[in-house]
Amino acid sequence: MIDRLIKAIIEKDNPTVAGLDPRPALVPGFLWEKARAEYGDTPEAVAESYWQFNKGLIDALCELVPAVKPQIAMYEAYGVAGLKAYEKTVRYAREKGLVVIGDCKRGDIASTAASYADAHLGKVKIGDSEFEGFPADMLTVNPYLGEDAVAPFFDTLKKYDRGLFILVKTSNPGSGQLQDLPVSTGGETRPLYEVVGGLVEKWGEDFRGGYGYSDIGAVVGATHPAQGKRLREILPHTFFLVPGYGAQGATAQDLSGCFDKNGLGAIVNSSRGIIGAWKKPEYLEKFGEEGYAEAARAAVIAMREDLNGALR
Amino acid sequence: MIDRLIKAIIEKDNPTVAGLDPRPALVPGFLWEKARAEYGDTPEAVAESYWQFNKGLIDALCELVPAVKPQIAMYEAYGVAGLKAYEKTVRYAREKGLVVIGDCKRGDIASTAASYADAHLGKVKIGDSEFEGFPADMLTVNPYLGEDAVAPFFDTLKKYDRGLFILVKTSNPGSGQLQDLPVSTGGETRPLYEVVGGLVEKWGEDFRGGYGYSDIGAVVGATHPAQGKRLREILPHTFFLVPGYGAQGATAQDLSGCFDKNGLGAIVNSSRGIIGAWKKPEYLEKFGEEGYAEAARAAVIAMREDLNGALR
Repeated sequence: MIDRLIKAIIEKDNPTVAGLDPRPALVPGFLWEKARAEYGDTPEAVAESYWQFNKGLIDALCELVPAVKPQIAMYEAYGVAGLKAYEKTVRYAREKGLVVIGDCKRGDIASTAASYADAHLGKVKIGDSEFEGFPADMLTVNPYLGEDAVAPFFDTLKKYDRGLFILVKTSNPGSGQLQDLPVSTGGETRPLYEVVGGLVEKWGEDFRGGYGYSDIGAVVGATHPAQGKRLREILPHTFFLVPGYGAQGATAQDLSGCFDKNGLGAIVNSSRGIIGAWKKPEYLEKFGEEGYAEAARAAVIAMREDLNGALR
Repeated sequence: MIDRLIKAIIEKDNPTVAGLDPRPALVPGFLWEKARAEYGDTPEAVAESYWQFNKGLIDALCELVPAVKPQIAMYEAYGVAGLKAYEKTVRYAREKGLVVIGDCKRGDIASTAASYADAHLGKVKIGDSEFEGFPADMLTVNPYLGEDAVAPFFDTLKKYDRGLFILVKTSNPGSGQLQDLPVSTGGETRPLYEVVGGLVEKWGEDFRGGYGYSDIGAVVGATHPAQGKRLREILPHTFFLVPGYGAQGATAQDLSGCFDKNGLGAIVNSSRGIIGAWKKPEYLEKFGEEGYAEAARAAVIAMREDLNGALR
């Protein structure tokens, strides 16, 4: 799996993943009014506006970015209708050749984790047929329950050629409260996130592809540059999903340490900076609300140049 | 919120939560065949069989247990149709007066956590109306991202009188891999789960009810008796949701340390032991497949006696 992602990054010369995290305030008014006219003040209307919004973004971005990352919580807030829009988004993005990273941060005991793996990366058997619920290529996963709770995902990765990003050091300001705690094992004291990172590197040993990276990656927030650099050094085979650029405050320089000497090893997420670009005065004047997808294109091109400039 | 749960436990004299975690193998054949006849080999058929199964269980158990805990992963595996069955289950159980604990183990950065809080414990505003997606009373949450990532849930608890159970020490065999790691802070070395437990106790300070427990509880696995007992001592105001009884191997004796001297302070989950009770030869002979809900009743009564026997 990871080779597919890396190949797409190289082909598009762009280590950017567009975060498809719609919110009512980010959806242009004309899309909302159209959906509202059809469905009224209902979750179906919000879901329809999200889906139309995403479809326009995917069409505009699919030649420019290697991957998209829909954040399922934004859809889950609108119940079943919202999740239908999530499902349509995932399927459509894959049809358009994009790598889809389902940002679901699931994690539970083994028998339950197996159901999450089925839901997002695998299939369930139903009588004589098979069914894929929310078929992403890669999924974000929470490690707090330990190896026996993430192992069921590993079987699914092998069977269906999929990948994971396991939370190691997250981008939120308070991520250090637990993740930076000093842990003493084997005579050494290390922050918890390094221990988790070490496990992720080990879990990935059997999943390495042609570029030397494994299908089991790590989430490493761009907002903690020194820790990102340190993790890059000690986890040489672990690919990073890097949130925090743009709206959360990190710059291209901050996250350059997450990349290897070949400019690979990480993919950087931006959500609001891309999908909400149309709201910036300079883009709004140029493209109007209806041109929200063109504004997203312009924002992606600017981001690509910013990242590639810092990496070269 | 926690007072509502404790009152229901006292009234029903039963600290048991029934885990509504359907799987195809746990649904009696007649329910599946009926759904399959209508919907074919589709996720809609599975969802319909889960919903009918749950409805029968809720009707049979609502006078006996204070709460149910549907595990969302079982439904998510069947996509949007599955989640529709989850939603119907949650709404129906609340209608029947049960406390519903949504076992979703969500957790993400603050802006995203707020959407999960809206989805499962709160409401979203849509134009002039309001909508509840999957309205549970209490929700399980993962603490790995730290306080700023769980705080958005706290606002929702206050606003809508809801509760949380935050993962502290989980029931899976390998939970110690991270949760038992020795952490050194302030000159003291403690396992990580105690640090997390201490945070949960602190977060709950503003949420205490009439029984002295807070709306912010902890998940503490019954499969780790000594640790459960220790946590009961050091977290005097934190109510425990205790998984691991029965199918996962813990006995009533194992988990008695999770309770306080009044026999309160914890609610014990059983899923397969209750909803799959009909498959046990003694119940199958007595009740038949069609009597699966009566078998669940019998299993709950046996569990109540087992727990209360160990507590008195």
